[in-house]
Amino acid sequence: MAKKIGVILSGCGVYDGSEIHETVITLLAIDRAGAEAVCMAPNIDQMHVINHLAGEPAEGEKRNVLVESARIARGNIKDIATVTVADFDALILPGGFGAAKNLCDFAVNGPDCSVNPDVARLLKETVAAKKPLAAICIAPALLAKVLGPINSPVLTIGTDQGTAEALNKMGAKHVDCPVKEAVVDRQNRIVSSPAYMLAGSISEAAAGIEKTVQELIAMIE
Amino acid sequence: MAKKIGVILSGCGVYDGSEIHETVITLLAIDRAGAEAVCMAPNIDQMHVINHLAGEPAEGEKRNVLVESARIARGNIKDIATVTVADFDALILPGGFGAAKNLCDFAVNGPDCSVNPDVARLLKETVAAKKPLAAICIAPALLAKVLGPINSPVLTIGTDQGTAEALNKMGAKHVDCPVKEAVVDRQNRIVSSPAYMLAGSISEAAAGIEKTVQELIAMIE
Repeated sequence: MAKKIGVILSGCGVYDGSEIHETVITLLAIDRAGAEAVCMAPNIDQMHVINHLAGEPAEGEKRNVLVESARIARGNIKDIATVTVADFDALILPGGFGAAKNLCDFAVNGPDCSVNPDVARLLKETVAAKKPLAAICIAPALLAKVLGPINSPVLTIGTDQGTAEALNKMGAKHVDCPVKEAVVDRQNRIVSSPAYMLAGSISEAAAGIEKTVQELIAMIE
Repeated sequence: MAKKIGVILSGCGVYDGSEIHETVITLLAIDRAGAEAVCMAPNIDQMHVINHLAGEPAEGEKRNVLVESARIARGNIKDIATVTVADFDALILPGGFGAAKNLCDFAVNGPDCSVNPDVARLLKETVAAKKPLAAICIAPALLAKVLGPINSPVLTIGTDQGTAEALNKMGAKHVDCPVKEAVVDRQNRIVSSPAYMLAGSISEAAAGIEKTVQELIAMIE
């Protein structure tokens, strides 16, 4: 039977949701590895809506994270509240500001952020079940917040020193990483890659994400 | 200098805009070929907004094609009204219902559809300049409508006989095509591939789209 890879989405668009390129490249890498993506997102309002043409908030507009995430998943997506660790063999979080605005509020509160309860629950369940985890772009901040105090995961968000320090403050051990590479914490079974934290092109992001998905699937027992 | 590939978007989401997987795979294939994507979309309201979780229209909601397309393009997108054939070396149209609802109204009016004036202008300019064109999924319907009466392009939308007959009625010559392949009309310099008209997985769609982009770029003089 095909290995199932949980994919936690946070909306649809780099500035207020999941980074679309990172997510599609993740889904393609999963499928090409012969595994099956199980997409999920929280059924909550987005922190806000950004007009991606103007680069500014669309005042007065409201969108739902699960409904917008369904665009990238072509409707094939679950409410994360209904998902348990038994539903997948590994879990991955693409980036985009949604990971830091909707799945937690790291974009606003930094190391003092709080995390969506279902996301936090699923991350803890995954580690407890010794199933591998991956996070792309800014999403390692979530892993640092939830797993940092106990597991001290080795993670990367690329080379941005301010963000790296914030991750370390939450209990992670940040290491710098070039855009086309991934960092593997074999003890905690965690993979991360900078993608658009550093990428100057979609190909650069893809190189690191493809390595991340390969490493993630290879760590499934 | 890198070859420039115009990419006409129609929103962000398979049911009311550009198919997101098809578009990202197109952008990745362009970048990996060493070419540069020039994204564009019309600055008009979408025909409607579909809730992609429920698969139903979101009554009362309005979204703009250019603003939503900017999500896939990470903000790097032009109003198609400002673009001329001098701005690119080849032109490609990803699929999604937006191609048949926003760039034209083929989804509603079939062979009697009308086409957005700027899209029609750019397709005609491209053929007149002998620059190559490609269309994915349902987007060949646009080429059939605009170019059919004069150029009789050879096109595919896969194997759906009702849609194929509609394309023929507009003046195209439809040929069936498997999901992982592309049809090349060398006389008119037009490439097409079924993608999600037939694809059962993102990998299947990607195989045909990657061939389409390769053929498109190879035909640039």
